[in-house]
Amino acid sequence: MGQLVRVQNFTVSSDGIAAGVDQSFESPFGLDHGSLMAWFFATASFPGNVDSDGSRGLDDYFARDFSNNIGAEIMGRQKFGPQRGPWADHEWQGWWGEEPPFHTPVFVLTHHERPSITLSDTTFHFVDGEPAEVLRQAKEAADGKDVRLGGGVTSIREFLDADLVDTMHIAVSPIEFGSGLKLWDSPDELDDRFEHEVVPSSSGVTHHLFWRK
Amino acid sequence: MGQLVRVQNFTVSSDGIAAGVDQSFESPFGLDHGSLMAWFFATASFPGNVDSDGSRGLDDYFARDFSNNIGAEIMGRQKFGPQRGPWADHEWQGWWGEEPPFHTPVFVLTHHERPSITLSDTTFHFVDGEPAEVLRQAKEAADGKDVRLGGGVTSIREFLDADLVDTMHIAVSPIEFGSGLKLWDSPDELDDRFEHEVVPSSSGVTHHLFWRK
Repeated sequence: MGQLVRVQNFTVSSDGIAAGVDQSFESPFGLDHGSLMAWFFATASFPGNVDSDGSRGLDDYFARDFSNNIGAEIMGRQKFGPQRGPWADHEWQGWWGEEPPFHTPVFVLTHHERPSITLSDTTFHFVDGEPAEVLRQAKEAADGKDVRLGGGVTSIREFLDADLVDTMHIAVSPIEFGSGLKLWDSPDELDDRFEHEVVPSSSGVTHHLFWRK
Repeated sequence: MGQLVRVQNFTVSSDGIAAGVDQSFESPFGLDHGSLMAWFFATASFPGNVDSDGSRGLDDYFARDFSNNIGAEIMGRQKFGPQRGPWADHEWQGWWGEEPPFHTPVFVLTHHERPSITLSDTTFHFVDGEPAEVLRQAKEAADGKDVRLGGGVTSIREFLDADLVDTMHIAVSPIEFGSGLKLWDSPDELDDRFEHEVVPSSSGVTHHLFWRK
């Protein structure tokens, strides 16, 4: 079937916003990320639910597909950390501590290179280049499996513009932010290129599934 | 989270029927299995869709979860083959040819033991015993992963009666058979023991998701 480029569990507000403009160490998303991701935190597959009292319904199918046949991730630099410009030092190793939830090579898009970091079974590579060239590296590292495009908004838009995205799962949460980084004005604006299925969940989230026409 | 016992992609008609009464070599399910499973055959993850033109919408999430974190399967003898009573010989090796789609140990429930068979990365073991004892063996073989309860109806009912099922995904197809082996009179009859989410799909199938209360 070839290697797909997949967006998984990426969540936006009802007005299409995934992150605020004021990202910081104290507020990694620059907005109320807890409300946005509440559907995910309620599932049995969310790593925080070690006591296994999470839901195993529809939302959990999406949550647990996160790593299914994924061999590498590509993420924007703003997902990796709040720094901008050249790295002041190499002490920052991402938000995720000693056990990042990726378990694969991760390619961080940045114009400012730095040495790779390995934490447990995740290795972060810092790469500069066009989306198609970074994707070539990620596909090679994924060893036949698919590549997850992890976000944020800027890198997803960039890969969509380059027509490099094969499937997308976008969850739309029933909250409104008003301002911030927008994935879209409307979920329907991709319908010229993608099949698009809309699946409401009892949690209040609406799952939007896209795959190439 | 412990090892779960999961029913996955098991499909019944709108009147709860999963198999006919006249199973044979020519008609493994004894009824129109093609119509019953049409939702699954239309997905990109169905192994037959090698050209990858299948749907990657909601139904595909269920289809591709089939092997996700599964380390062993338990199946009834009627799923393995149409024979009844003592094995006349050991030539029959299941319906699936040299590459069965399980890729794990499979425990076939039968009162008539025979030597194990290995085909590619699937090994069939033939076991006699109470559900709890067979499950103990399957969990050990699954090496920390979950155990799929593969059906048919008789073995699912048996494991439900013994309260050994943790999660179930049952797809209800919009066809009616009238007679055959019934999983249930109504999907709601398990609601005393299970959380139950109902998810309609655009394919016409309705997915019923159950997990322990």
